[in-house]
Amino acid sequence: MLNESLNMNLSEKINHLITTLPELKWDISEIRKKQTSSDFHWFSPILKQQLAHVQVDAVVCPKNIEELKTLIRHAVHDQIPLTVRGGGTGNYGQSLPLHGGIVIDFTAFNQILSFDQSNAVVHTQAGIRLKVLEDYCIEQGYELRCKPSTFKIATLGGFFAGGFGGIGSINYGPLNAIGNILSLRLLTIEEQPKIIELNALQAAEYAHSYGTTGIVLDFHLSLAPHLNWHECVLTFPKFAQAFQCAEMIANDPALGKKEIAVFSSGIERYYDHLKAYIQPGDATILSIIEHKYLNTLQCIVEKFQGKICFQQTSQQAEQSKFSILDYCWNHATLAVLKHDKNFTYLQTAYSIGSELSQLERITEKCGSDQIIQHVEMIRNAHGQVACSGLPILAYQNPQQLQQIMKYHEEAGVRINDPHTIYVADGHHSKQLNPNIIIYKQQNDPHHLLNIGKLSSSI
Amino acid sequence: MLNESLNMNLSEKINHLITTLPELKWDISEIRKKQTSSDFHWFSPILKQQLAHVQVDAVVCPKNIEELKTLIRHAVHDQIPLTVRGGGTGNYGQSLPLHGGIVIDFTAFNQILSFDQSNAVVHTQAGIRLKVLEDYCIEQGYELRCKPSTFKIATLGGFFAGGFGGIGSINYGPLNAIGNILSLRLLTIEEQPKIIELNALQAAEYAHSYGTTGIVLDFHLSLAPHLNWHECVLTFPKFAQAFQCAEMIANDPALGKKEIAVFSSGIERYYDHLKAYIQPGDATILSIIEHKYLNTLQCIVEKFQGKICFQQTSQQAEQSKFSILDYCWNHATLAVLKHDKNFTYLQTAYSIGSELSQLERITEKCGSDQIIQHVEMIRNAHGQVACSGLPILAYQNPQQLQQIMKYHEEAGVRINDPHTIYVADGHHSKQLNPNIIIYKQQNDPHHLLNIGKLSSSI
Repeated sequence: MLNESLNMNLSEKINHLITTLPELKWDISEIRKKQTSSDFHWFSPILKQQLAHVQVDAVVCPKNIEELKTLIRHAVHDQIPLTVRGGGTGNYGQSLPLHGGIVIDFTAFNQILSFDQSNAVVHTQAGIRLKVLEDYCIEQGYELRCKPSTFKIATLGGFFAGGFGGIGSINYGPLNAIGNILSLRLLTIEEQPKIIELNALQAAEYAHSYGTTGIVLDFHLSLAPHLNWHECVLTFPKFAQAFQCAEMIANDPALGKKEIAVFSSGIERYYDHLKAYIQPGDATILSIIEHKYLNTLQCIVEKFQGKICFQQTSQQAEQSKFSILDYCWNHATLAVLKHDKNFTYLQTAYSIGSELSQLERITEKCGSDQIIQHVEMIRNAHGQVACSGLPILAYQNPQQLQQIMKYHEEAGVRINDPHTIYVADGHHSKQLNPNIIIYKQQNDPHHLLNIGKLSSSI
Repeated sequence: MLNESLNMNLSEKINHLITTLPELKWDISEIRKKQTSSDFHWFSPILKQQLAHVQVDAVVCPKNIEELKTLIRHAVHDQIPLTVRGGGTGNYGQSLPLHGGIVIDFTAFNQILSFDQSNAVVHTQAGIRLKVLEDYCIEQGYELRCKPSTFKIATLGGFFAGGFGGIGSINYGPLNAIGNILSLRLLTIEEQPKIIELNALQAAEYAHSYGTTGIVLDFHLSLAPHLNWHECVLTFPKFAQAFQCAEMIANDPALGKKEIAVFSSGIERYYDHLKAYIQPGDATILSIIEHKYLNTLQCIVEKFQGKICFQQTSQQAEQSKFSILDYCWNHATLAVLKHDKNFTYLQTAYSIGSELSQLERITEKCGSDQIIQHVEMIRNAHGQVACSGLPILAYQNPQQLQQIMKYHEEAGVRINDPHTIYVADGHHSKQLNPNIIIYKQQNDPHHLLNIGKLSSSI
């Protein structure tokens, strides 16, 4: 490794590196660079503006750990920023290199390394797409414990680095609940990259740090049994009835489910596959329950003056190419945005026990033409049933967005701001776990990995 | 059916019935009558005295529904009290006929009627012993969602009628959480006995009414996947550490478990199989976790200054004929009573979030020589992690027992009194669900079924 690169600018350094390492799979086509300069941050009008300048210098797709180590050694020597990218489905620009440099396309790390049938554990590389991973697991009788609505494109590593929880979290909590990941291995960004193995408790701490603290290579992931699921859409004359019904289903420890989302009226306008079934003005629940509970669900729904307006087995969903998963979590926001670009959303966490009054108060403050309430029922990392909100907003301008966030905070609702690129600011506390900063310093001492994402100063 | 029985006394009526229905399997041997005049109510010195007078007149073991209907028709005509008995493992005298009469031994209703592999549902008769049922389910890859520590002897019907929850309730709640039972069928006590089918919501309401509201014939029971379990005994210098560790394991939605019991020091004296592993003075957790979480558990236990002092796989437990299940739930009380008859116990429910301070306050009030704290972690029917207590008491006299109950109530702990034979008084509210009284009147209009158990007046 020569020192001739030291006086070059970033672009020259990268061109030099490409020449030095011709065995790696580089892509410097404009189309690819443009593609990797974006993700799904455009759900936020704020981030859309803020990240418009981002420009990737080169994309590289290493095939194995040796290639990755070689790349890291050179990047450290040349001080070239590195940013890892999975499926590129994130909403906070977490795979966009603020300071340019090389984007590492991790999707060649897509191998399932082993499968432990008797313990329901898969050992898999981080770049595997979640749907590919789950399809494999389903063949063995298992499925993912939780997944985002972007699971068809998103990778496991990307979900770990930028995601939170999703479908299935009503049972197993978010991905970082201790035990969903049994262990993981990551590579440090040093002259001599090291492989570090983290146990379940350590892995939980590393989650959702935007790939700033090392490059995750592979996971031992705990799985759920693959059950006989049934998709049901429930409608209710009033939002309160829908919410209380969802709460009863969520709280019941015996009624098997893996998805419960509640929406206030208005959402039906954007649900092309469902609008024929939902009466305008009704509140809606999208739910996936175990097939055997269909009769039980019918009895419960009636208690709340609701009805099952649409239902299908998983097999029917597969055949029809329509699943209600296409409308849950942030795919609800996407469905609205497909119709009307003037919408955006928030991420909210309601106070346990006061959710309904908080939601009603906020709807009243905002006006029901400004907000479509969207609540996902989950278990949090402490096992409590909690409401994770993704309210959909008719966006006007930054001041109005601030005002709506203020209404939430006044009602005691925590905001996990999706309109910031910083890990720290995305937390309601606006504070990083101090350990993350330690891990960053240990594993990326040259500060080359996804620079400027932990907070505005790191 | 002749009317000649009307002027007879109960004993004469029963003798007459035995002659009238010789095809039924009767047992009037003294040994059998004595055996069915008792159960495990002797855990309570109060009930031991109160139920000493109980005398069964005859035991009958019907083979099928037709025999049962014939018996009921005659019993209704002759006004003969009927009491159904399963394994006889109850602790509140729930299968003891206060007013004599016929005990129906239900253990011939022990057939598995069908098994739905794809939905994890077993259709089974009520008289089947839980261990027999579970052994069958395990062959199909499933197991019971919850079971009492008496599962080797107890029947499903007896568990439904007199039990609550148990091993597995940390996941699925008590048996009466809506959905653990999908449906059940029961037989009414009328001139023309009817079969009534109850759905999941109705079945939940009928639970724990001591078989006073009809004779349950069979259940559609929802099952859990049979996982690779690992038994671990954890010890800690302090009770608070043990409790907090148990709480963390219980709350974690991702760490698979099916049993977590916490004991204050003192219990080790009575645990013959474990006393070599537990240092006197240490607090103890008995836990069953998924095998794959052994390393994770080790990390968690260390956070609380504890250690894993004993562990074995399920296979090892089976081979050694010792399982920690022999020491959990009311088998803990039994283990103590085997050493020293001067003990008894309570059933307590702590306030969520204040459990530890309540437990510590009560230990201080009672004196640690008077009480061994025993807490079982469960999810309640609303899905919250809750502490179900079975504190073990050095019994002196009824006044002292009342005093200890008073200490609990003063600390805000609910008592579900195990020293009463009445369903109503066993609830902390001392009130029956009014629907139970309606069901009783509908299904047993002649008041012949397990008379005098709902409350002191019914």
